[in-house]
Amino acid sequence: MGCPVGIGPEIILRYFFEHTVPQGFQVVVLGDANVLTRCARHFHIPITVKEWQPGDEIIPGNLHVLHLSSLGDGLEWGRPTIETGKAMAGYIEKAVQLIQQNEIAAMVTCPIAKSALHVAGYDYPGHTEMLAALCNADDFGMMMAGEKLRVTLVTIHNKLGDVPMLIHKKNIVDSICLTARTLKHDFGIAKPRIAVAGLNPHAGEGGVFGDEESHTIIPAVEEAIKQGFELSGPYPPDTVFHKAVAGDFDAVVCMYHDQGLIPFKLLHFEDGVNYTMGLPIIRTSVDHGTAYDIAGKGVAKPTSLKSSIDLAARVVVNRQKYQEN
Amino acid sequence: MGCPVGIGPEIILRYFFEHTVPQGFQVVVLGDANVLTRCARHFHIPITVKEWQPGDEIIPGNLHVLHLSSLGDGLEWGRPTIETGKAMAGYIEKAVQLIQQNEIAAMVTCPIAKSALHVAGYDYPGHTEMLAALCNADDFGMMMAGEKLRVTLVTIHNKLGDVPMLIHKKNIVDSICLTARTLKHDFGIAKPRIAVAGLNPHAGEGGVFGDEESHTIIPAVEEAIKQGFELSGPYPPDTVFHKAVAGDFDAVVCMYHDQGLIPFKLLHFEDGVNYTMGLPIIRTSVDHGTAYDIAGKGVAKPTSLKSSIDLAARVVVNRQKYQEN
Repeated sequence: MGCPVGIGPEIILRYFFEHTVPQGFQVVVLGDANVLTRCARHFHIPITVKEWQPGDEIIPGNLHVLHLSSLGDGLEWGRPTIETGKAMAGYIEKAVQLIQQNEIAAMVTCPIAKSALHVAGYDYPGHTEMLAALCNADDFGMMMAGEKLRVTLVTIHNKLGDVPMLIHKKNIVDSICLTARTLKHDFGIAKPRIAVAGLNPHAGEGGVFGDEESHTIIPAVEEAIKQGFELSGPYPPDTVFHKAVAGDFDAVVCMYHDQGLIPFKLLHFEDGVNYTMGLPIIRTSVDHGTAYDIAGKGVAKPTSLKSSIDLAARVVVNRQKYQEN
Repeated sequence: MGCPVGIGPEIILRYFFEHTVPQGFQVVVLGDANVLTRCARHFHIPITVKEWQPGDEIIPGNLHVLHLSSLGDGLEWGRPTIETGKAMAGYIEKAVQLIQQNEIAAMVTCPIAKSALHVAGYDYPGHTEMLAALCNADDFGMMMAGEKLRVTLVTIHNKLGDVPMLIHKKNIVDSICLTARTLKHDFGIAKPRIAVAGLNPHAGEGGVFGDEESHTIIPAVEEAIKQGFELSGPYPPDTVFHKAVAGDFDAVVCMYHDQGLIPFKLLHFEDGVNYTMGLPIIRTSVDHGTAYDIAGKGVAKPTSLKSSIDLAARVVVNRQKYQEN
C-alpha cells in the first residue's frame, strides 16, 4: 500500500475499480483496511474493502486487504508520522515474508517517502535497499521498464560533474551483466540485445569530446562480450534511444540518471515501471513518488500501478518458464 | 546543395519529386546542375534539372539550379575533394550574397563536412560559424526545432565532465535571451514561455545532488526574468521535456548537448530542423550530416529537408509580420 498519506491508497482503489487484474492472477493489498475504506468514501469510489488472510477466497469486484495496521482517522494527506512510517515498513516486511513462504508470487510496491521510513527508525537509503536487505541480495539494481523502452543506470543519484569519476569498468560490466540476466530470466528474452550508451556527446567522437569511452566503456563492453552477452556500444547517447525504440535493442545501459530517465520519462511518463533487478523475489514498483502535493485531491492515476501489476504477473510466468527449461 | 558527394543532392531531388514547396514560395537550388542531373539519372528520379538565374521564371515540376560549379563526373560518393569543398563553400557564400541583395528571402542548407571545408581552405569551425562571419553576427546559436519540441543549448560539443565548469550565469542568460528573441521575432510567439533545465538529477534536489542550480542557474533565471522574459526553472531534466511536449513551454534551454538532443532526437529523429538563431538572414538546416556511409545508395530521405524548407518559409512570414507590428 506504500505510504498511507500519499497517493498509494487512491491509486489502489482506482486500479481495482477501473481495471481487471492479469488473467490467472489474484491481487491483494498488504496495508490498512481502515485507511482504504475511508479513502473509498473520500474519493467516492464504490468498491467494497474486505479483510483477507492467506488462504481466504478472493471474490472478484472487491478489494482484499491483509490488514496490517490500524491507523486512526486523524491522518492528514501528505503528512507522514512515525506511525504511518512504521505501518508502511510493516507492509513491506510482511510482503517479503509471505513471498518467502510461497503464499504470494510477487510484490508490487506503491510509493513510500524515504524520510518517513527514516523517521520510523528504518535506516535504509530507500525502498529497494530495504528489500535487498530483507532478501540478502547484494547484486541488485533498478531497471525502468516500459513497452517501448527499457533503461538501466550505472550511476544514479549523483552530481552530473561526479559521473565521469564514478563510472569504472567494473560497475559498467556489472550493470550490463545484471541487465542481461534480468532480461533473460525475468523478461523471457532468450538472447537479450543490449546497447551501451557513451558518456560524452557523439560517444566522444574518437576522443575529441572526452576519452571515458576509450578508457573505460569500450573495455567494459569487451569484457561483457567475453562473458557471452550480446551487446554493442558505446553509442552516441542522442541516437541510441531512437534505435532501441525502433526495435534494435532490448535495453540501453546508461551512464547516468538523466541520460536514461530523460528518454524514459518522455515515452513512459505515466505508465513506466520501476523494476528491481537481482532480487530472489519478484518486485515491481510504480514509477512515481508519494506525490504528497496531490494526495487526497482525487487526481492521481493508477496507470503506472496497472503497468507494474501487469509486469509482475508477466515476470512470474517468465521465471517459471525459465526454470522449467 | 551542401557537399556534392554527400546525401545533399539525393535529398534535394527527392524533395522536389515527392513534395510541394510551401504555398507562396519558390525554391531554387544553389549548387551544381551537372551533379544534380547525374544524380537524377543515378537514382532514377524523373525530374528535369533546369539552370536558373535570379529573375528567371520558375516552372513548377522542375528543379531550378543556380549553377555555381561544374564538377566533373569523376566524383566518388563519400569522398570529398578540394574541388567539392571549394564548390560547396561557394554555394554558401552566394546564398548569403543573394539574401543580402534581397534576391532571396531565406536559405536552407544541406549538410557539409567540416573537414571538406577545412581542406578547401575555409578555416571556420563549422557551417554556422561561416554564415555568422559572412553576416557579421556575433550573438548567434543553434535551436533544434520540431513540431513537438524546441531545445537550445548553453554548451554543445564538450566532454560531459567539463560541462559544470562551462556553464556560467552569463552564458545561460545569453542563451535564454537569444531563445526568447528568436521565438518572438522568428517563430511568431508574442510571449514565449521558456523552461530552463537544471544540470543535475532532480535539478539538484535542493543541493543534495549538486549546487550548480543554486549558484549559477537560479541567478541566471532571475536575471533573465528581470529583463522581461517569461521563463521558469531550473526544472528536473527528466520531466521538463514531457511538460514542454504537453504544451507548457515553447522551448527548453538545456545545459549540455545530450540533455537537449536525447529528447529532441527521440521525438524528431527524421523531421528535426537545425535553426540558426541570431543571424540577420534566415537560415534553417537539415538536422543530419553528409551521411557519407549511405551516399549514393538511394536510401536517404528528404524528411528533415522538407521540415527545414517549411520552417524557413514560416520564419520569412513571421519576421515580416513582426516588423510590421
